Amino acid sequence: MPDPAKSTAKPAKQPVNKTRFTDSQVAVTRVGILGCGTVGGALVDLISQRAAAIEESVGIRLEVRHIAVRNLEADRGPAVNPDWLSTDSNAVATAEDVDIVIELLGGIEPARELILGALNAGKPVITGNKELVANHGAELFAAAAKNKVDFLFEAAVAGAIPILRPLRESLLGEDVIRIMGIVNGTTNFILTRMTEDGASYDEALTEAQELGYAEADPTADVEGFDAGAKAAIMASIAFGVEVVANDVHHEGISNIDQTDIAFANRLGYRIKLLAIAEVFGTGANKEVDVRVHPVMVPLTHPLASVRGSFNAIFVEGAAAGELMFYGRGAGGDPTSSAVLGDLVDAAVNLRGNTFLPVPAGAPAVIRSIDEVDSAYYLNMEVGDAPGVLAEVAGVFGQNGVSIGSMEQTGLGDDARLVFITHIAKERALQQTLIELGELGSVRAIRSVLRVIED
Amino acid sequence: MPDPAKSTAKPAKQPVNKTRFTDSQVAVTRVGILGCGTVGGALVDLISQRAAAIEESVGIRLEVRHIAVRNLEADRGPAVNPDWLSTDSNAVATAEDVDIVIELLGGIEPARELILGALNAGKPVITGNKELVANHGAELFAAAAKNKVDFLFEAAVAGAIPILRPLRESLLGEDVIRIMGIVNGTTNFILTRMTEDGASYDEALTEAQELGYAEADPTADVEGFDAGAKAAIMASIAFGVEVVANDVHHEGISNIDQTDIAFANRLGYRIKLLAIAEVFGTGANKEVDVRVHPVMVPLTHPLASVRGSFNAIFVEGAAAGELMFYGRGAGGDPTSSAVLGDLVDAAVNLRGNTFLPVPAGAPAVIRSIDEVDSAYYLNMEVGDAPGVLAEVAGVFGQNGVSIGSMEQTGLGDDARLVFITHIAKERALQQTLIELGELGSVRAIRSVLRVIED
Repeated sequence: MPDPAKSTAKPAKQPVNKTRFTDSQVAVTRVGILGCGTVGGALVDLISQRAAAIEESVGIRLEVRHIAVRNLEADRGPAVNPDWLSTDSNAVATAEDVDIVIELLGGIEPARELILGALNAGKPVITGNKELVANHGAELFAAAAKNKVDFLFEAAVAGAIPILRPLRESLLGEDVIRIMGIVNGTTNFILTRMTEDGASYDEALTEAQELGYAEADPTADVEGFDAGAKAAIMASIAFGVEVVANDVHHEGISNIDQTDIAFANRLGYRIKLLAIAEVFGTGANKEVDVRVHPVMVPLTHPLASVRGSFNAIFVEGAAAGELMFYGRGAGGDPTSSAVLGDLVDAAVNLRGNTFLPVPAGAPAVIRSIDEVDSAYYLNMEVGDAPGVLAEVAGVFGQNGVSIGSMEQTGLGDDARLVFITHIAKERALQQTLIELGELGSVRAIRSVLRVIED
Repeated sequence: MPDPAKSTAKPAKQPVNKTRFTDSQVAVTRVGILGCGTVGGALVDLISQRAAAIEESVGIRLEVRHIAVRNLEADRGPAVNPDWLSTDSNAVATAEDVDIVIELLGGIEPARELILGALNAGKPVITGNKELVANHGAELFAAAAKNKVDFLFEAAVAGAIPILRPLRESLLGEDVIRIMGIVNGTTNFILTRMTEDGASYDEALTEAQELGYAEADPTADVEGFDAGAKAAIMASIAFGVEVVANDVHHEGISNIDQTDIAFANRLGYRIKLLAIAEVFGTGANKEVDVRVHPVMVPLTHPLASVRGSFNAIFVEGAAAGELMFYGRGAGGDPTSSAVLGDLVDAAVNLRGNTFLPVPAGAPAVIRSIDEVDSAYYLNMEVGDAPGVLAEVAGVFGQNGVSIGSMEQTGLGDDARLVFITHIAKERALQQTLIELGELGSVRAIRSVLRVIED
């Protein structure tokens, strides 16, 4: 890791005679940045460290010209020239002497207005703002296409992991049929601690908060909203349709307990919070299913071995088969690396007078969660009396939910029944749960998790 | 998987009124293919299946015009129009009615001459020919740059896995410091069978041959030559220098036996054949170390869980941190998926009158294997007598090789000593081995493997 404290170089002009380009070949690209928090600060450091190497390899000299901040007085380290700072975001977004705008404010407004302003001023824009892209992507893609400039947002999904560019470029010829991602490092950290160290959910969450992985209010992470925004973006890019955050079905991890973790371990699974996007049919019959929920992943699946705060996205294509992209999903350095990759790409395109439009698809037809097929794990407590198992099994059978494996363990006067079903429709499973809840012998349904079959 | 037998669609013109482009917006890209074996056949099938979707998403209509083959009479399935076939490779490579040439012949000649001919005729070229790129890459990159056309070869490394494009584009701003890849599916299959099923090396190799994963003469795979060519290509792209196949230090897996596998399992490692490329220093002091050899990888490392014939490439960047790219490294469908991704990319660039040059670096300064640092596993048989361990340990100490862990087990009248060292220079380790071999008490040094520390 580069140590920002050791970086004393200013992102000033690089002496041209140190490169193999002559002055006339080097294109100066002037950069305006909106926001200078963790990612913005890391980005300015990274640009100052990498500018000479980038100039040597692609003949583009990146020069930060303006940074919009709220507080002009904050200490921002040696890579930030105080002359660049301004509190006028609008002026930075549309400045005459800015070629490319980088938005790192987060949130919907004023980020949306500023980005639209920059695009309409003919400037390529780079952002890592998942909330904005997941809610207003179509509007921004259209504005970029209208103005024939790049709008790039690799950092919005899974930080440093190149996933959107492979989906947009490498897999353009591929029929991508499903994406399953661990795209929230906080929840993966919590689940890893619960699995490997036997921590309770509350203990693991507290540790995540102490390490700065989780917010004081962890709702956006643990209930799947953050992962849902990323799922919407990946589905839009992979399937060429408009999917917004609100289209995503969410279930979080706050109900997972050590009983579930222990059963998963014993049965050969890891519990992971997955963002899943699938496409069915083509043309007018195309339907997309986008959801975030915990899943029991078999140990033999590559996603099972993604530990701690790492992210990974598993992509299934008709011809390519199974692909997975793994790396750091958050943090100043990994995120700024993704932004810098986009910046160099946009600068090369700008010099070549070209850009890569995001295919702006029609709003997706969303397949209801009721219609989704999955296998399930059910963990319930029942009275330990003759005939109870037959009664419970009968409810599964009446709803057409086939049982793959089952085990019964004693629990004082009660018994615990754990079932793993074969593939069933969510609707049938939900009806099964309703009818099980109506049985006098069923004390409690402790947990229901979807399962990827081995 | 699409079933080629079911594909009856010809890659003919798509009715334009089914797409959202008008005729004038659709760019027809005429394709010439050199070779129609497993990958070529799969590619023609895939183009016929995906042409409509590609036309809808990027407005480019791919039309195969010519295919150069040796045998005009072979049955090539319904997607191949017999009118496209020709035995004149030169004519296909330079045909007036071909916009992009795809080389799938393999080997050095005539592939090299044909590609140079196509590039010099101003045509972008796509290839999956790792041997050619690893030996003559610089010449081909220069010809492409001179003619201002794309030369793309994603399929040459790790089949369907997008790795070269991320290195060339997403990570352009990144300081990539090390690449470690499982890039040969045959050897990973053999090692997986030995690890998971207790197969001997010979049994696993025979199975790989029966499944078509290994050739009758498996040398190129098991001795690391195939992986070495891919290592050279990755090092060239990641570090911006010219690395050729002959620069790569090779050791294969044919000496690995069940004793090593058992020790690795017990100590918490998996044995993998890794292609490793590292860079040290910058500018005139830049040195590159490129090698292929078996490695004991700790179970907690993402490469340890890459099983069977899958490939994965682990990339370490200064800012991005650890990244990994996983997928199918071989086979007609995965490889043709990578070729089609490059084809769409080249077609989009051609329409936009642009291209992405491969940075053609100067020949790399190769760091000798003697100078490489690693931890090591040593497995040796010694006479079971007083003072032997002290004698053996003394040799390590005199050469400055520090022992991390050691165990001794009985072996009839002899004893087996297993050491894992801390990081040491290869030169020091080799001198240690020489001196150990001179000790009367050392019966045999059974194996020496490099180790990634946990």
